Amino acid sequence: MIDRPARIAVKRTARSGGVVTSGVRIVPEEVPIAFSYGGSTHAVMMGTPDDLEDFAVGFSLTERIISDVGQIAAIEIVDGEKGIDVQIALVDEVAAALTARRRSMAGPVGCGLCGIESIEQAVRKVPDVAAVWLNVTCRDIVEAVLLLNGAQPLHRETRAVHGAGFYLPGKGLVAVREDVGRHNALDKLCGAVIGQGQSGADGIVAVTSRLSVEMVQKAAILGTSVLVAISAPTALAIRTADEAGMTLVALVRGEDFEIFTHPQRIQPGTISDVA
Amino acid sequence: MIDRPARIAVKRTARSGGVVTSGVRIVPEEVPIAFSYGGSTHAVMMGTPDDLEDFAVGFSLTERIISDVGQIAAIEIVDGEKGIDVQIALVDEVAAALTARRRSMAGPVGCGLCGIESIEQAVRKVPDVAAVWLNVTCRDIVEAVLLLNGAQPLHRETRAVHGAGFYLPGKGLVAVREDVGRHNALDKLCGAVIGQGQSGADGIVAVTSRLSVEMVQKAAILGTSVLVAISAPTALAIRTADEAGMTLVALVRGEDFEIFTHPQRIQPGTISDVA
Repeated sequence: MIDRPARIAVKRTARSGGVVTSGVRIVPEEVPIAFSYGGSTHAVMMGTPDDLEDFAVGFSLTERIISDVGQIAAIEIVDGEKGIDVQIALVDEVAAALTARRRSMAGPVGCGLCGIESIEQAVRKVPDVAAVWLNVTCRDIVEAVLLLNGAQPLHRETRAVHGAGFYLPGKGLVAVREDVGRHNALDKLCGAVIGQGQSGADGIVAVTSRLSVEMVQKAAILGTSVLVAISAPTALAIRTADEAGMTLVALVRGEDFEIFTHPQRIQPGTISDVA
Repeated sequence: MIDRPARIAVKRTARSGGVVTSGVRIVPEEVPIAFSYGGSTHAVMMGTPDDLEDFAVGFSLTERIISDVGQIAAIEIVDGEKGIDVQIALVDEVAAALTARRRSMAGPVGCGLCGIESIEQAVRKVPDVAAVWLNVTCRDIVEAVLLLNGAQPLHRETRAVHGAGFYLPGKGLVAVREDVGRHNALDKLCGAVIGQGQSGADGIVAVTSRLSVEMVQKAAILGTSVLVAISAPTALAIRTADEAGMTLVALVRGEDFEIFTHPQRIQPGTISDVA
């Protein structure tokens, strides 16, 4: 465990309604977080220093380093002066596969590949969730976002972080994670969901942010077939969700929302029947 | 030039006030954009496919591959099926320096460094802008954000992209760029500013997004001493701006705002004197 706060009180001068005051504001912390496997760093992300075990599991999953939480032998979190090193030990055969993958693929930075090859690597094939059947109602969509909005302590204090939640129809919101980075918040949520022994196929993933293609990729890797966002999607996120057989709902505001792909999972007759 | 639209009309089902309709929504495009130097890819970013020459110049600058736009010999944009390859030819001595840098530093992905070394690489020293003197008034801050809000055609249509603008006190907003990614929008703006022959030291950079540390780094590399944001800053962004001698203003809403670091550039007496 580390003892690094996720929120900090800073002094600032505020101008409000023409009146100038000095005081404090609570802002979210942002720290370099390195993920190291077998002592060798895979990536450094800027993120909020909490729920780091969930982040480690979720990142390992959505980067497809592991396919199951049981493939992680140990997680050790080392707090350094300038950042946090999350050291992940993999079970032997998965560690060997990662070493082989690293040899064959130097990664997108300074990799020596031409642009077209690098783009092929960047645009990963997304798992198909077309066969995942989840029966949701309009009420589930509205409630998932409503509950998520009420379950974000860091955002309530800072108004500056993203949240991701996992909602089970009939049971409610079972996990929420927050981060200054929206990808990190979703990775942390993925880690929390599989850490709880839940199946991503059983619920809805709800996020407070816009929907870029990477959010669709991560939700599909978790096995989730319904992705709901408060903000708008990109065109590539919509195409990717369409190809993956995923139901994409966005711009959820109160009881209003828009359905972009695969509406068949939303029970007919419930869409105009919320209030 | 490429002919790939930055915005796309998609069909969706909308629920609004209990009424369900089918129709179209305009969403921003998102495309893998590879930056290749001398035929070898440096990075692949997901971004909006417009202003790619500005993006190439700004990215090369903020990644510190170039220190001056004259170090780019040519930019060629190749549109592929799955993404765009931006091929940048550097002048000979800068190309040689990049090749040498690549040999000594494999990059943060799968780089074989330990976590602490990787974090040291990730947390780059930010240029000091303490000596950059810019005299701004409260009116300049309010106006920079007001003008930026009115100068974002892609955001007006999609409500889903970030904007970055460059404001010269006494002259107004002289450049605005937009992107689905806030870092990309600022990189494009940096390219536009130096492409116009402007000095970053002469103006204010205003952004619509939250202020993470990378936004402070990019603005400092442009030489700008006043960074203004509509949303909130992270704690690390504030510390970094403080160390770099940069004036950080955030949470600008109409004529209200908050000053987090180095208020000395904002003329005394003007803060409570806007309307």
